[in-house]
Amino acid sequence: MRRSCVVAAVIASIGVGSAFEAPAQQRKPEDSIKMRKAAFTILSWNFGTLGAMAKGQIPYDQAEAVKRAEAVHFASHLPFEGFPKGTESGLDTRALPEVWASPDKFKANAERLQSETAKLVQVAKSGDAGQLKSQFGATAKACSNCHDDYRRK
Amino acid sequence: MRRSCVVAAVIASIGVGSAFEAPAQQRKPEDSIKMRKAAFTILSWNFGTLGAMAKGQIPYDQAEAVKRAEAVHFASHLPFEGFPKGTESGLDTRALPEVWASPDKFKANAERLQSETAKLVQVAKSGDAGQLKSQFGATAKACSNCHDDYRRK
Repeated sequence: MRRSCVVAAVIASIGVGSAFEAPAQQRKPEDSIKMRKAAFTILSWNFGTLGAMAKGQIPYDQAEAVKRAEAVHFASHLPFEGFPKGTESGLDTRALPEVWASPDKFKANAERLQSETAKLVQVAKSGDAGQLKSQFGATAKACSNCHDDYRRK
Repeated sequence: MRRSCVVAAVIASIGVGSAFEAPAQQRKPEDSIKMRKAAFTILSWNFGTLGAMAKGQIPYDQAEAVKRAEAVHFASHLPFEGFPKGTESGLDTRALPEVWASPDKFKANAERLQSETAKLVQVAKSGDAGQLKSQFGATAKACSNCHDDYRRK
């Protein structure tokens, strides 16, 4: 029961809108870059477990799937405050200039990711391994769509 | 209302116990190290905003405080699966051998951190800026206590 509200709670607290607002305090560009990369690392780590499950590399485990999906969903809201203007460089980053040249499209990509990770939580909770595999694919597609345009190869 | 359940939900999903279990799949040591460092980066980023508030460097803002406290609490559960045996080295890490030499004490430190971050969410929600400042200090103390014994200076 308690788990059922985490998605809404996370969206309320790390919300889509606020993720694109300027941080409350001044940050060094390199700290923003470090944070956004860290957020993607957390996302990828947890998504990787779901991928291993989807590919049959590890056994399907509903509780583990829910835990990972919720971490992925949470992490999907973290990186985007790490892209303010002025963070185009300063630390090794694969972010392309298009992030800042077409922010509305970049934001739409982020929102699509967050929407897919919300569904990922839902299907993980449903306990349907087939649906989880399918939604893993849809979420991976949201990742790669954005990477295609906004991340250096 | 919805926010009120996030702490319980996060604990249920990223629980203290599971944070110390072996990951479900094999990971490269360097990936574990990268993940745990990323988790501490996320923790620090969000805790930093609370610190700026506590020190009066930015205005007190309850909604922002709750958002950051919940992110800190969430992040406080992420790093600890990134310390399996075999990750003593392999990527630049400040983790000391004591992590693996006294795992029970290390785990107790992690649980103390998670307990303090849970309180941080509570006091952030209470809207009492004084209590937030006090609990920021208690949480920072949990960080530094662990750093003293388990992190290279």
